[in-house]
Amino acid sequence: MNKKIEALQLKAAKLTRESHALGIPVMIVFEGVPASGKTRLTNDLLLTLDAKYTQFIATKTPSEHDLRFQFLQNFWNTLPSKGHINIYFRSWYAHFIDYKIHEIKKHTLKDYSKLQDEIHAFETMLQKDGHEIIKFYIQINEEKRQEHINQMKENPLTNWKAQEYEQVIPTDTYKAEFEAILDEAWKVIDYTKRDHAIQQMYEHFIARLEKAIQQHKMRTYEKAGDFAKNFETDLFNVDIQKVKKQEYEDLVLALQLRLRELQFALYERKIPLILVYEGMDAAGKGGNIKRVREYLDPTGYEVNAISAPTDVELNHHYLWRFAKDMPKSGHIEIFDRSWYGRVLVERVEGFASKEEWSRAYEEINAFEKMWVNEGAIVLKFFLTLDKDEQLKRFKDREENVDKQWKITEEDWRNREKWDLYLEASHDMITKTNQPHAPWLIVPADHKKSARIEVLKYIIQKCEEKLWGVQRY
Amino acid sequence: MNKKIEALQLKAAKLTRESHALGIPVMIVFEGVPASGKTRLTNDLLLTLDAKYTQFIATKTPSEHDLRFQFLQNFWNTLPSKGHINIYFRSWYAHFIDYKIHEIKKHTLKDYSKLQDEIHAFETMLQKDGHEIIKFYIQINEEKRQEHINQMKENPLTNWKAQEYEQVIPTDTYKAEFEAILDEAWKVIDYTKRDHAIQQMYEHFIARLEKAIQQHKMRTYEKAGDFAKNFETDLFNVDIQKVKKQEYEDLVLALQLRLRELQFALYERKIPLILVYEGMDAAGKGGNIKRVREYLDPTGYEVNAISAPTDVELNHHYLWRFAKDMPKSGHIEIFDRSWYGRVLVERVEGFASKEEWSRAYEEINAFEKMWVNEGAIVLKFFLTLDKDEQLKRFKDREENVDKQWKITEEDWRNREKWDLYLEASHDMITKTNQPHAPWLIVPADHKKSARIEVLKYIIQKCEEKLWGVQRY
Repeated sequence: MNKKIEALQLKAAKLTRESHALGIPVMIVFEGVPASGKTRLTNDLLLTLDAKYTQFIATKTPSEHDLRFQFLQNFWNTLPSKGHINIYFRSWYAHFIDYKIHEIKKHTLKDYSKLQDEIHAFETMLQKDGHEIIKFYIQINEEKRQEHINQMKENPLTNWKAQEYEQVIPTDTYKAEFEAILDEAWKVIDYTKRDHAIQQMYEHFIARLEKAIQQHKMRTYEKAGDFAKNFETDLFNVDIQKVKKQEYEDLVLALQLRLRELQFALYERKIPLILVYEGMDAAGKGGNIKRVREYLDPTGYEVNAISAPTDVELNHHYLWRFAKDMPKSGHIEIFDRSWYGRVLVERVEGFASKEEWSRAYEEINAFEKMWVNEGAIVLKFFLTLDKDEQLKRFKDREENVDKQWKITEEDWRNREKWDLYLEASHDMITKTNQPHAPWLIVPADHKKSARIEVLKYIIQKCEEKLWGVQRY
Repeated sequence: MNKKIEALQLKAAKLTRESHALGIPVMIVFEGVPASGKTRLTNDLLLTLDAKYTQFIATKTPSEHDLRFQFLQNFWNTLPSKGHINIYFRSWYAHFIDYKIHEIKKHTLKDYSKLQDEIHAFETMLQKDGHEIIKFYIQINEEKRQEHINQMKENPLTNWKAQEYEQVIPTDTYKAEFEAILDEAWKVIDYTKRDHAIQQMYEHFIARLEKAIQQHKMRTYEKAGDFAKNFETDLFNVDIQKVKKQEYEDLVLALQLRLRELQFALYERKIPLILVYEGMDAAGKGGNIKRVREYLDPTGYEVNAISAPTDVELNHHYLWRFAKDMPKSGHIEIFDRSWYGRVLVERVEGFASKEEWSRAYEEINAFEKMWVNEGAIVLKFFLTLDKDEQLKRFKDREENVDKQWKITEEDWRNREKWDLYLEASHDMITKTNQPHAPWLIVPADHKKSARIEVLKYIIQKCEEKLWGVQRY
C-alpha cells in the first residue's frame, strides 16, 4: 500500500469524524463513464469512512416503481442527516441524462432543461442549509477502459455484468452530455494512473472538508422574526358566497360525489393532487378536510397531519419529511399544515434563523415546482378567521366535553401572537402565490360556506387540468 | 346520520385518544371480497380517527419492486409506532392468498404453508409486544354485491375501476381460501344491512380497545437479567487454524476475489446474503468486515453499523429497524451488531424486561426464518477474545492517536460486565443456532486467522447454496 495514500486516508477519516461531530451533512458525487474507475475510487473512500454514518447510494435507471414518483424523489428520500455522509455512485446528473436521452416522462416534462433547474435548486437549498456537496467526474483513456471491460468479460461469473455496463446510456452520449454539465464545481480526475487518481481524490476531499468545517464554525444564527410595529393588511378581507343552511347538505354531497369521480379520473390519468391547508387555529381545517375526503376512495389518498418534528426529522433538511410523503402518480396527498411551518411557526417562535426563513419562500416555490413540472396539481388553502370568532370557538371547545382535547395551552399562547401570525401569513401568501401553485384565501367564520368554497375550487382546478374546461 | 352510530363514533374516537396517550400500537385488518362494503366501513372508521396518528394501508398485488423483497416486507416497513393506528384495507392474508393461488416465488417458496407460519409468528410477536390486532372479515349477500359493482360500472369515470375489482383474486377462490383461515380471532360482519354493519364494527372495535387499554395498564415490567452466580462455559474454547504471516496476504486476496465472483453469482441468481456480526468489544469486527467487503462491488452490498436507537426506532417493535434494512434479492447486507442486541446489551443493562428478552430467542429464530424461506443465506459470526487480549487492545487504542476515537468510557464499563456478557452470549448462541441460520464462533485473538476463517466460511456456504457443492 502506497504510504502517501495511507496518510491521506487517515486524514480523511479524522476529518469526517470531526464533520460528524459537528453535524455537517456531506454528499459526495461520483460520475464518469462505465469502467472508468468509479467503483475503485468510491470503494476506497467507502472503506476509509465509518460505516456508522456513511451510506452508499447507487443510481440506476428508473424502475416502474420509481417512475410513479418525482424525478428527484429517491434523492430526497435518502438525504443525509446531520453528520452523515452519502457517497453517490452516479447521481441526479446521470439520472438527468437518462431521462433526457430516453425521453422518460416526455408527455409531462417536454422540456428537459426543467430538470436542470430542479437540480440547481436542489443543490442550492442544500448548500445554503450547510450540506457540503463534493462532485467528482472520473475520466480514463479509452485503451485502459477497454482493458477493464475485457477483464470483466473473461470471467463467466462477471461477463453478464460487463455487458450490462454499456446498455443504459451509450458512452459517447454520456460524455457529450457531461461536457455541457461540467463547470468549476466539479473536480475532474483522470484514472489512467490509479494511485495518482486516488491521491487526487483524497486531496480534494480533504481540502473541501477542511473548508466546510471552517465555514461551519463561523456560521452565525440570528434569531429574528423581523416583524413590523403596527402591521396592517387587507389581504384577508375576502368575501365568499354564504351558503344557506337548507341548501348545504345537498350541495356538499353533490360536490363530494363529483370529487370522487374526479379522483378516479386523476388516477387513470396518473395526475397527483397535492392539497395544502394552513390557517388560524380553530378555523376549521380538520372539518374542511373531512368534507373533502369524506367520499374519496381511501386507497388513493392520504392525510398528513403535521405534528412537532421527531429527532430524526430535526436532523434532516426541513423539506425532507414532506418530500418523502409526496404522492405517487394518480394519488392525493392532503397536508394538514405543511412545509409552510418554516415561514409561520418557525419564524414566529425563532425555531428558524432570519436567514433560514427569509430564503424559504424561494426554496418552497422551487420545491412545489418540482412536482408541478411532472403534472401535479398543487392547491393551497388558507383558512382565515375573525379574532373574536376564534375566541368564541376556543371557549366552545373548552366547554364541550367531546371537544376539550382539541384545545391546549399552546392554542392560547398562539392567540396572543395573533398579529405576528397575521404578518407571517401575509408575507407567506404574497411571496408563494404562484400561478402553478396558487393560494386560495378562505374566510372560515362560516364553516359550511368555507367547505363549499374549497370543494368547488378543487373540482374546478381538477377539471381544468383534466379537460382544460371550467365547469364552475 | 344514525344517532346510535354517532355515539359509537364519539366513543371510538375518545378511546383511541386514550390508547394513543398510553402508546398502544393498534392494527385493524379488513378483509372481504371486492364490493363487499370494505371501503365504506374502513372509510367510516378512518374519518372517525385522528389523522395525526392513523395510517391507511391498502394491500395490492405485489409489483416487480415488491417481489425483490420478503413476503412481509411492506408490513414490517409500515408497522405502527407506539400510540399509532394502522387500518389495513386487505392485509397479509389477502397477500398470502395472492401468493398461493398465483404461485408467486414458487421456486423458493414451494410450500405456501410456510407463509402461514410467518403470519402466525408475525402476529404473535407483535401481540406479545403489546400491539392490539383487530381483524374484520366482511361478508355480503351476492345480490347486493352485484348492485355495488353495477353502480360503479354505470359511471364512465369509475367503470375501469369496477373491472379491476375482479381481476386479482377470483371471488370464489378468495372466499374458499378464507373459510380455511377464519377462526375465533376474526369478527365476521355482514354488510347486507349497512347501518347494522357499521354499528357492529364500532361495538367490536370499542370492546377490543377497552380490553387492550385495561391490559396495558396491568402490564408489569420485571427488570432481571437472570444471571448465574458462577457462570462457566467452554462454548468459546474453539481452535482455528493459525495462518502464517507470509501466507496471509496472498490467501486473503484470493478469498476476496472469489467472494467478489460469488457476489455476482448471487446477484444473478437473486439470492440475498445476510451477514451478522456480534462479539466482544475490540474483537476486531470492523477489521473483519473490512476484509469481507474490500473487493465487493459497493453497488450490491451495505453495511449496517448499529448505534443506539433513535426515538423513532424506540417507538417501534424492536425488530422494525432491522427488518426495514434487510437486503433485496441478490444483495448483501452486513450487520455490525444486530437484533441480537435484544438478548445481549438489553438483557445485561435491563433495557428489556425479563419477559421480553426471554421470548426474543424464539422471535429471532422466526424472524430469520422469514428470509431463509425465500432463499436468503443467513450467517452469523461471534468473534471471541481472551479477556487479557481485550485489555491489551484497549490500552493500545488509548495510546495510539489514530485509534483513540475507538475507545470510550462505555467500553470500559462493558468490560466490567464481562461475565454477564459471556453468559448472555452463551445463551444466545445455544438458543439461536439454527441449521438454516448458523452461528460460527470465531476466536479473534489472532485477527488475521479470524479473517481467513470468516471468508472461507462465507465462500463455502455461498457455494453450497449456489451449486450444492463444498469447495473448502
